[in-house]
Amino acid sequence: MEQQKERLAKEAVKYVEEGMVVGLGSGSTVNWTLEKLAEEISRGLKIKGVPSSKKTEAYARKLGIPLTDFSKVDQLDVAIDGANEVDENFNLIKGGGGSLFREKMVGLASKNLLIIIENKKNVAQLGLPVPVEVVPYGWRLTAAGIEKTGGKVRIRKHNDKCFITDNGNYILDCSFGNLNDPYRTNQSLKLLVGVVETGLFVNMASTVIVGKGEKVETMAK
Amino acid sequence: MEQQKERLAKEAVKYVEEGMVVGLGSGSTVNWTLEKLAEEISRGLKIKGVPSSKKTEAYARKLGIPLTDFSKVDQLDVAIDGANEVDENFNLIKGGGGSLFREKMVGLASKNLLIIIENKKNVAQLGLPVPVEVVPYGWRLTAAGIEKTGGKVRIRKHNDKCFITDNGNYILDCSFGNLNDPYRTNQSLKLLVGVVETGLFVNMASTVIVGKGEKVETMAK
Repeated sequence: MEQQKERLAKEAVKYVEEGMVVGLGSGSTVNWTLEKLAEEISRGLKIKGVPSSKKTEAYARKLGIPLTDFSKVDQLDVAIDGANEVDENFNLIKGGGGSLFREKMVGLASKNLLIIIENKKNVAQLGLPVPVEVVPYGWRLTAAGIEKTGGKVRIRKHNDKCFITDNGNYILDCSFGNLNDPYRTNQSLKLLVGVVETGLFVNMASTVIVGKGEKVETMAK
Repeated sequence: MEQQKERLAKEAVKYVEEGMVVGLGSGSTVNWTLEKLAEEISRGLKIKGVPSSKKTEAYARKLGIPLTDFSKVDQLDVAIDGANEVDENFNLIKGGGGSLFREKMVGLASKNLLIIIENKKNVAQLGLPVPVEVVPYGWRLTAAGIEKTGGKVRIRKHNDKCFITDNGNYILDCSFGNLNDPYRTNQSLKLLVGVVETGLFVNMASTVIVGKGEKVETMAK
């Protein structure tokens, strides 16, 4: 497992070139990528990273990766991130770690959103619960609105308290079963009063690298 | 002006009956309403208020109005609020005071959203800038997205710093000129990554009370 993550990270880092501004996703596979990037940087590679979570920011700093942010740049060359699930059309469910908002902003700002996953996350149709970031004020009404659209809602907890995102919001994990139309599900959710952003990334990823046993397979749009 | 606000408040309070849960909007006209409500309460009226901003909450407490919140109630009987502008179809622009999110949640949860305004705010077509609440992270990208839809964006400042909402977000005041289709403008804005909520309240108000000189005129849907 760790070896596979390392192989994925190695492959992903090949997309990073001199002078690039690089979106840094979140999660354990991305942490491997940060380590590989730090190695390249120590060998002379000049890049700047835009972290998509406070955790990633802290780890990247520790590794000595130069960072920048959206007050200084408005387009990234490539972003490298993981996902909870990826379908045949490269639609994603993200937000397992709770950083879906910043990850979406980073992905949106990137010319190339590159997703690295283990094979089991590569599915025909998305079906995992969709993490939805909501404003704490009135969240029960927001949850009721989501249930009206057919979702089963569970508020995410951490140590018996509501999990709080980097933006100070809550996460509702919303089960819809298999998603026949992720675009439409994303729109219905986002339009609800109280929904800040959803973990459905529709039509955003351009490259997916899948770890299959000892091999990695790259698919590009 | 103050006399007219008082007249509007007096009229609005007629809609509040024994035992009701009442949404309390924000702004100077609503403050008059809070005072009238407090008078009725001192005469024995039993109601509970749900404040739509921290300012309203503080003022209602000072006046001795019993309060509750969305952890205890999920439907309100009536909400009384002001607006920046109201069109012929009772669509509203709100958010001049920066509390549009909570006001929208309160309005949405109310069986009857009652708006009190001076006559000059009663227009054929909405045309004021639309306040839009956005996540601070990456707000320049969000602003660029809004400009792509045809809006001219100005970030709201307070004492030379970005104005911060009760939810910890920023407000972008977005000029579109006259709004031919407020429903569509609201949807396009809300779907953008970074937009938490807009100050366009489409198809929400059911009663509008307008102050015209020494008279008040009530219009209901």
